[in-house]
Amino acid sequence: MGELRRDPIVGRWAIIETENPAMPDSFLKEDQSRRHEATCQFCSGREHLTPPEIDVVRTPGSPPNAPGWSVRVVANKFPALMIEGELDKRGVGLFDMCNGIGAHEVVIETPDHHKDLVDLSLEEICHVIQMYQNRYLGLAKDKRFKYILIFRNFGESAGTSVEHAHSQIIALPMIPKYVLEKIEGAANYSEYRGRCIFCDTIAQEKENKERIVTENEDFIAFCPFVPRYPFETWIFPKEHDLSFRKMTDHQQRNTARILKEMLLKMKAALNNPSYNFFIHLPPVNLGYSQETFHWHIELIPQLTRVAGFEWGTGFYIIPTPPAMAAKFLREAHVG
Amino acid sequence: MGELRRDPIVGRWAIIETENPAMPDSFLKEDQSRRHEATCQFCSGREHLTPPEIDVVRTPGSPPNAPGWSVRVVANKFPALMIEGELDKRGVGLFDMCNGIGAHEVVIETPDHHKDLVDLSLEEICHVIQMYQNRYLGLAKDKRFKYILIFRNFGESAGTSVEHAHSQIIALPMIPKYVLEKIEGAANYSEYRGRCIFCDTIAQEKENKERIVTENEDFIAFCPFVPRYPFETWIFPKEHDLSFRKMTDHQQRNTARILKEMLLKMKAALNNPSYNFFIHLPPVNLGYSQETFHWHIELIPQLTRVAGFEWGTGFYIIPTPPAMAAKFLREAHVG
Repeated sequence: MGELRRDPIVGRWAIIETENPAMPDSFLKEDQSRRHEATCQFCSGREHLTPPEIDVVRTPGSPPNAPGWSVRVVANKFPALMIEGELDKRGVGLFDMCNGIGAHEVVIETPDHHKDLVDLSLEEICHVIQMYQNRYLGLAKDKRFKYILIFRNFGESAGTSVEHAHSQIIALPMIPKYVLEKIEGAANYSEYRGRCIFCDTIAQEKENKERIVTENEDFIAFCPFVPRYPFETWIFPKEHDLSFRKMTDHQQRNTARILKEMLLKMKAALNNPSYNFFIHLPPVNLGYSQETFHWHIELIPQLTRVAGFEWGTGFYIIPTPPAMAAKFLREAHVG
Repeated sequence: MGELRRDPIVGRWAIIETENPAMPDSFLKEDQSRRHEATCQFCSGREHLTPPEIDVVRTPGSPPNAPGWSVRVVANKFPALMIEGELDKRGVGLFDMCNGIGAHEVVIETPDHHKDLVDLSLEEICHVIQMYQNRYLGLAKDKRFKYILIFRNFGESAGTSVEHAHSQIIALPMIPKYVLEKIEGAANYSEYRGRCIFCDTIAQEKENKERIVTENEDFIAFCPFVPRYPFETWIFPKEHDLSFRKMTDHQQRNTARILKEMLLKMKAALNNPSYNFFIHLPPVNLGYSQETFHWHIELIPQLTRVAGFEWGTGFYIIPTPPAMAAKFLREAHVG
């Protein structure tokens, strides 16, 4: 018989299949080959095809918007939201609305069309993380923005439309629903127990052990007890006070290290699947800080399809129990 | 510039693209051909391959589990939840859990492998609705169940694995998150304003007119102001007191009529897309009634892919404004 499990932060339920769990090789293998180098606008030498650099890591002395870079941040050419204009918040009968103000940036992670984030060196991934941090701090200066989401789509099933390695940053003028639920869930817990629910989760996972995939000095990666997807993995800073805003070089390196390790493990254990990850950082310009929120990364391989039951309930059916998923990932050989 | 819109019931935001909206022909056309008749377990003459009938509409005098039926309800051979056993609710550290108790049934909508729900006659669709109603009432008798979801997946992008026309029913021992959010949102509104937010939504849509797709004596179909998907359509009973439990033949016929009309319109306007629909009925065995909840159907064509931004925020990017979507659906020629 399966199990029904409830997430203590946001109240979401999942059905965990325990009798006939899906093994890694039971999911469809996806073709991740790269076919569009000839027309790629993110490749080195085609810098004039993108909007100008907002931030960049490049060889000292090389001119902007020209080769010589290793990571480039540019505005999205087809932004979901516009940076210029007034919010003009208004009511329309029952509804609240405002203009589509926000920022939408692209972090081009490497000049090489045939490398993905997972293939980069630790040093190169550190530069990507550095760009994430810079843009989080930079965008937070715009008082109109309340939330900044850093996320990555890899592969067709994860919704990517450009195959050259990149992640995205969207700044929003409000806290989105899923983040708000986490903040409120954590605040309720803290009010009741006087403790951080993310810290308590880490303590429980460390005691239980079976869902932990890997850890280093600063971070722990584990398959959550109540996931939305099979093989979903969360990466938490171990210390509540590890601030994304003020990470030391050492902490940044450990972020890059655990991210690379998890991506390698996922690639090895799950046949190079499509995946998404996103970083849940504290809201900005609203007085939130690390004190009231414990930032983390959700990493989700896209192995199954969400259907009517999930859309209609917000209730997820998980074919592989998290402890089993963690074991496959833990044991994945990554050289 | 786009618009940011907030749903007043559950608090979800959407980004509506207004400058370069996606037209119906800009979405990928999906192949919906049927290839597996030879091995189909839902076809007439293969009744012995499914679990026995729980309920059925069949020619008088024809024996059970044999040809002669027009709609058949059977247990799902690979159920997400098991009907037998104890719930055994328990806590595991931070988590709540219980055994995977529930019901998972399949409504086989026609004996004909090459017809889908949209191709059935009004009379035949009435029989499907009748089975929905029967099973809702039947499953509600089991006091362990608190929520019954009736839903349908059509096409690969909507997550279906069996091509023969069918819908599904899952009974759950708790109210799922998305439904609970609607119930709480409606209760908050009612407490504050003394009115039903679903009724107020209908009033506003009728006044505004531009998002209405079609209506009949008992039902209205419109593209909601804050959807999760392009061309999403909601079907509401116009009268708050129209009870799904006690529908008259006339009301049942009008349910079938608006559902068939919407499916025909969607097929014509959107190139026979994959879609999901689900019916949000009041919870059972918890004292909820039509008084505190206004049941409705959400119908969602699967035209785009949800990616990292949506998974990370619960914030949806809608490439076609609902008023424009409604116009395409309204004007779709359905003979």
